[in-house]
Amino acid sequence: MAAIDTSQRVQLLRPTAVNSILAEVKQLQSQGRKLISLMRGEPDFRTPPHIVEAAERALRNGRTGYPDNRGEPALREAVAEKLLRDNGLGYDPGREILITTGATFGIHAAFTALLNPGDEVILPEPVYDAYHSPVLLAGGAVRAVAARIHKGRFTLDAAAIDAACTERTRVLLLNTPWNPTGTVFTASELAAIGEIVTRRNLVLVADEIYEAITYGAPHISPAALSPELRARTVVLNSFSKTYAMTGWRIGYCAAPAEVIQAMFLVLQQSSRGPATFVQDAGVAALRGPRDCVAAMREEYARRRRLVCERLTGLAGCRVLAPEGGFFAMADVTPQGQTSNEVRRRLLHEHGVVVIHGSAYGAAGENTLRISFAGGGETLAQGLERLRGAFEAIR
Amino acid sequence: MAAIDTSQRVQLLRPTAVNSILAEVKQLQSQGRKLISLMRGEPDFRTPPHIVEAAERALRNGRTGYPDNRGEPALREAVAEKLLRDNGLGYDPGREILITTGATFGIHAAFTALLNPGDEVILPEPVYDAYHSPVLLAGGAVRAVAARIHKGRFTLDAAAIDAACTERTRVLLLNTPWNPTGTVFTASELAAIGEIVTRRNLVLVADEIYEAITYGAPHISPAALSPELRARTVVLNSFSKTYAMTGWRIGYCAAPAEVIQAMFLVLQQSSRGPATFVQDAGVAALRGPRDCVAAMREEYARRRRLVCERLTGLAGCRVLAPEGGFFAMADVTPQGQTSNEVRRRLLHEHGVVVIHGSAYGAAGENTLRISFAGGGETLAQGLERLRGAFEAIR
Repeated sequence: MAAIDTSQRVQLLRPTAVNSILAEVKQLQSQGRKLISLMRGEPDFRTPPHIVEAAERALRNGRTGYPDNRGEPALREAVAEKLLRDNGLGYDPGREILITTGATFGIHAAFTALLNPGDEVILPEPVYDAYHSPVLLAGGAVRAVAARIHKGRFTLDAAAIDAACTERTRVLLLNTPWNPTGTVFTASELAAIGEIVTRRNLVLVADEIYEAITYGAPHISPAALSPELRARTVVLNSFSKTYAMTGWRIGYCAAPAEVIQAMFLVLQQSSRGPATFVQDAGVAALRGPRDCVAAMREEYARRRRLVCERLTGLAGCRVLAPEGGFFAMADVTPQGQTSNEVRRRLLHEHGVVVIHGSAYGAAGENTLRISFAGGGETLAQGLERLRGAFEAIR
Repeated sequence: MAAIDTSQRVQLLRPTAVNSILAEVKQLQSQGRKLISLMRGEPDFRTPPHIVEAAERALRNGRTGYPDNRGEPALREAVAEKLLRDNGLGYDPGREILITTGATFGIHAAFTALLNPGDEVILPEPVYDAYHSPVLLAGGAVRAVAARIHKGRFTLDAAAIDAACTERTRVLLLNTPWNPTGTVFTASELAAIGEIVTRRNLVLVADEIYEAITYGAPHISPAALSPELRARTVVLNSFSKTYAMTGWRIGYCAAPAEVIQAMFLVLQQSSRGPATFVQDAGVAALRGPRDCVAAMREEYARRRRLVCERLTGLAGCRVLAPEGGFFAMADVTPQGQTSNEVRRRLLHEHGVVVIHGSAYGAAGENTLRISFAGGGETLAQGLERLRGAFEAIR
């Protein structure tokens, strides 16, 4: 019997780096290897109890019928309050906010709603690898702009962004705090990028899912810089990182009404939004006590210090102290191998799992991404193994 | 400030009929009108308690981390058991099953994974209106094949399907039990359609979400007819209707491994699947007691009898007794108006909400879809109003 041919667009899609490496990890584990993973961006905290209880209460109250496809009105209102309170952004919950099954769906819906075939998206690199496939799925093309390490920090040159734009460029994707680099864009950096967006009539897709996890430099929502930029911005956010809710699959978008309407039509054809009682838990998260968020941030800050301390003074790598998020990049240029070769060596010889920087684009070459989303003994032992591997130049 | 242009593909998408009519309904309600709705396919039962408790237990046990993107292994195993037990279908949970955020996502993922631009999908009509937009979103084209009412039942002519196929036809969509018509395809009807699918190397997308709600004629999974047909079929199903779980947004697909792999890549770029604890509840639904399903079916059967009895012997309409699902079609040809005109008259003059058959394609003209997913006083009063409207020819 003939196999079924799948569509050409599916051939363009790549599994995420995490999923590819997970397959390698599972194979080794099946051979009995004990591995320590500093790979994934998954908080090891449990979802705060008041959020869990809100979901249980909603379940017991029969909140199991169809949700409003744009998102439950109470949640859209809570999101509008949050955007005003935390980000200085005013959005109409009736027309300018959409609730999604995680920021992943927001990315997909934004690109599907904005891109015609051949339209280009500017992606700074190194950047979260899962932005590429949704661009391709929507028929778009990626134009990468390489960041470089300057004074211990990945920075993006506005002139390089401007030079990368063509007649077909429609969207600029910005992730701040920036996974995997740890950079939190400053007001002046954002202003320079925003000037390009407004002058060229681009759309800025601003993925702000790590906003709550910063270590000094405050997170700034790009759309808050000017009414002109707000009118050209799609804000993407999620509950996953801020509230340790990765498995709940809930996020939200804010944008001018015509974009939200288009994204809503995309959503209606493919998901209908998160479960109704999950949306009720989202309200509890946004309106509830903030001390759980502060406590998690403090613990991430402690882990960040540990990473920087344990990986300091090594001949074989130089760690970049992140300004936000829960990943640290390590420059492994002294190793004289590609980042994927170093990653594989760490995995096979030292039993520690990290992600090679080149998974995030060519500009990530010679670096590794080390996650401190998890802590405790795993982090301590993982750092010990990295330290052992990098004490000398190979 | 210039508005943002959205993509051309979004212009092709239409809100579902339910959503369009809901907007009309809300406007009337805001003017103080008391309306009775026999519109929506949403069970008025609460989700059975053992399923709700499974979700609560999972939440309390911290089952809030990322799910397996293909679906939690335990749920895929439970789905495989269910397909064997209820449908006589053997599928490998490791490679041939995908868990989705409702059958809605399954439809989207199947079309996106199967269709190249210009590929055609055969849609029997009248049919659930929300199949069209996902076809267009995937760059495909719809070819409608009109069913007709024969001996009080919508039937589909296999020769008409065959005649509608062209070189570009890739997929045939079949919904059995069939929304809105109420038809449950017989083994011989399925065999005739299956012969076309295998002879023409089409893919059969079989949406079986109403399988548990039948009134005599048993549901038959098309893929169970032959190994050849199984090799060309994507089975779509959902927990929504069988377990009164519409708001949980959980469903599943089964298909040959290469199709599931392609659909998985689409899913990974846009949803990552249902919440982890929702998947645990799905296991409880599939492996738990079956009496709740039987009790709901009996209640739907009681409501169906009520609809048929109350709408019998009227000059202005003839009701078709459904074989499955919780919708009845009423032939309103004697009214001498389009179905949308009749629907609007019922709404504005009689205060009862139904959906016009032409929302489901031209073959639905002269009919109305009446939902008995809800019961009690709403159904009784709604039927009374319909009876009043249809006692005479207009």
